[in-house]
Amino acid sequence: MHRREQVDLREQADLREQVHAAARRARAASRELATLSTAVKDRALHAAADAVLGAAASILAANAEDLERARAAGTSEAMLDRLALNPQRVDGIAAGLRQVAGLPDPIGEVLRGRTLPNGLRLRQQRVPLGVVGIVYEGRPNVTVDAFGLTLKSGNAVLLRGSSSAASSNAALVDTLRDALVGENLPADVVALLSAADRSTVTHLIQARGLVDVAIPRGGAGLIEAVVRDALVPTIETGTGNCHVYVHADADLDVAERILINSKTRRPSVCNAAESLLVDAAIADTALPRLLGALAAAGVTVHTEPTEEQLRAEFLSLDIAVTVVDGVDAAVAHVNEYGTGHTEAIVTRDLAAAQRFTDRVDAAAVMVNAATSFTDGEQFGFGAEIGISTQKLHARGPMGLTELTSTKWIVWGDGQIRAV
Amino acid sequence: MHRREQVDLREQADLREQVHAAARRARAASRELATLSTAVKDRALHAAADAVLGAAASILAANAEDLERARAAGTSEAMLDRLALNPQRVDGIAAGLRQVAGLPDPIGEVLRGRTLPNGLRLRQQRVPLGVVGIVYEGRPNVTVDAFGLTLKSGNAVLLRGSSSAASSNAALVDTLRDALVGENLPADVVALLSAADRSTVTHLIQARGLVDVAIPRGGAGLIEAVVRDALVPTIETGTGNCHVYVHADADLDVAERILINSKTRRPSVCNAAESLLVDAAIADTALPRLLGALAAAGVTVHTEPTEEQLRAEFLSLDIAVTVVDGVDAAVAHVNEYGTGHTEAIVTRDLAAAQRFTDRVDAAAVMVNAATSFTDGEQFGFGAEIGISTQKLHARGPMGLTELTSTKWIVWGDGQIRAV
Repeated sequence: MHRREQVDLREQADLREQVHAAARRARAASRELATLSTAVKDRALHAAADAVLGAAASILAANAEDLERARAAGTSEAMLDRLALNPQRVDGIAAGLRQVAGLPDPIGEVLRGRTLPNGLRLRQQRVPLGVVGIVYEGRPNVTVDAFGLTLKSGNAVLLRGSSSAASSNAALVDTLRDALVGENLPADVVALLSAADRSTVTHLIQARGLVDVAIPRGGAGLIEAVVRDALVPTIETGTGNCHVYVHADADLDVAERILINSKTRRPSVCNAAESLLVDAAIADTALPRLLGALAAAGVTVHTEPTEEQLRAEFLSLDIAVTVVDGVDAAVAHVNEYGTGHTEAIVTRDLAAAQRFTDRVDAAAVMVNAATSFTDGEQFGFGAEIGISTQKLHARGPMGLTELTSTKWIVWGDGQIRAV
Repeated sequence: MHRREQVDLREQADLREQVHAAARRARAASRELATLSTAVKDRALHAAADAVLGAAASILAANAEDLERARAAGTSEAMLDRLALNPQRVDGIAAGLRQVAGLPDPIGEVLRGRTLPNGLRLRQQRVPLGVVGIVYEGRPNVTVDAFGLTLKSGNAVLLRGSSSAASSNAALVDTLRDALVGENLPADVVALLSAADRSTVTHLIQARGLVDVAIPRGGAGLIEAVVRDALVPTIETGTGNCHVYVHADADLDVAERILINSKTRRPSVCNAAESLLVDAAIADTALPRLLGALAAAGVTVHTEPTEEQLRAEFLSLDIAVTVVDGVDAAVAHVNEYGTGHTEAIVTRDLAAAQRFTDRVDAAAVMVNAATSFTDGEQFGFGAEIGISTQKLHARGPMGLTELTSTKWIVWGDGQIRAV
């Protein structure tokens, strides 16, 4: 073995041990956190908000380092904007923590319960998941949002952010940990993993028995890699190839409004529409009008989409257009090409709407509403940790309740089982 | 490349394609199944029960082939008993299907719903998971039980049973498929994968996009392999290193009864106790009595257990015994060595019971009741597909509701999103 490889292997083992040690500390902290009252958790969230405001200058200084590095590396203006903090954004981060403090605590909720014929009193209660690992590419505010939601739901969190935001994230997590200690809570409720090496992602998602769930937030590539390599349970989030289907009996004013909003409001987010389906029965009138409106809104229309374009999440001002023959053809198209995120039908026909909502296999199905409504805040969850596109555990926007598990508690007075 | 390897690779590719083709047919069938009414599904379950009874002779003949092969291979009597069918067991299999027909249908249940300030009417509804893959080593009745539960919950199922039960399983699945066709339902709602090659398990659990969830039912080795190699979401089931903790304030009559029942009722099942914790405060009196009772019941007592024995799921008349110093030490021991299945405390002290149930991290926590109660039928679910020991999606006994996902359905009248 060459000397260089030996060093690499040693470094890898060290990084693995670092991640595992952080996970073990998080596990211990999560056990303390699991039994805290709502009042104590809410106080900690307000203390964290105060701390973020108090540390604004050092957080902004750290962010300036990240921005300088990013500029030197030739990062695009759009990416720089995602990375940048300013006093208003720091205020927003603190306000987000206070908002989570105001949400109902999911822990302890009794979901089901009964007394069995033998007198056993059974109840199923919400409990925290334990240790949650979050892998993200996004903006530094995700660091604090994720902390707020996991703390409120009684979970410890291991954060693996982007290396581009390393200084900002470190400043934010240091601030949060100090605030926890100030409240006599374990700092290890939140920890930032090194983003210097890609392998810390792998170590995190393979820490079986130490991490209860890994949530990747980011592009399709990240999510694919996490799902492929993970040994801990994962929740897939946020790939959205969403369709707007304009049914034969659609109000075209409504169709145009919903289509343009779904496509252009924020083309870079997962609930944006990527595909338009127009019913053959109205194609002659509807198509020119809708394509004209798209063009006027600056959208590039792909009227003879390739298979690849039909499967694409453009995340840009592009749209694939297909003429389909009736509701069942629309459903078949959506179930073939969609990613199970959000699908919309525009129609005045009740039977068509019912058939579409019954048969489309997606986290959210909209009738006469824009795809952009699939969002934790819009749904009234107060905040979201991501949008799940898998069917297990959570589907659609994930708020506090989606960050919980359950436990059966059974009270008896000496019951034993006969057979 | 050698000729032999080329053949193997070709065979592997063929097996993979066989599994994928079955999964694609199951997917198509599941889409039809998802919208069927409860009445149609229940009728199909009764028809399947009738068909099993009608085909009893050929099912028993197929089972005789399996038994003959197993005997020739020198299989133990215990294993032969698990494999064996007889007229009574066939009656039991049919009765199980009728019992599932009598259970409430989980599909369509509205879990949450509200009208948003903008007038959008939101509801979250239970829907089937889609295609469920089940890998099992168990008895042939699992084949039919799994079909019954998945059909009732609107799912198609891919079954990968044990090669030892191949003939029995084939006869049973042929019978079920015929019954479905007789009811004008797609036969592909249920399919049996070849058990001739281990790789069909791998192909099943790696069929991403084709299989929605894989549930391994079997020993720790199978579950470990499935979790390691799976690319589709999985639910871990049934490894139980369960403890009975006898607290300082326990009624020793109750403690003895619960301990003996938890250990000896059926030592081979996952909810059997494998470890006894006795509080140091009463060790002098409790230990001789409990150890005496265990010995009298034929249990081998390991009073100085090794680390390995503390982690063992004996599944035999063995028990590890540890003296612990108070509730917190008991909780720490259980959380360190348990598998998160079922943990029991025996006590008359309310605070101790509360502290134990709050802090133990397991699917089920019993107060003054035997560990053996963790079971879908005992909990009143009617039947179970397994007992989940993971925290994601389902924890504890899994009945019909645990075989479902959810879908958000949003009705609007032209709403678009402003920001």
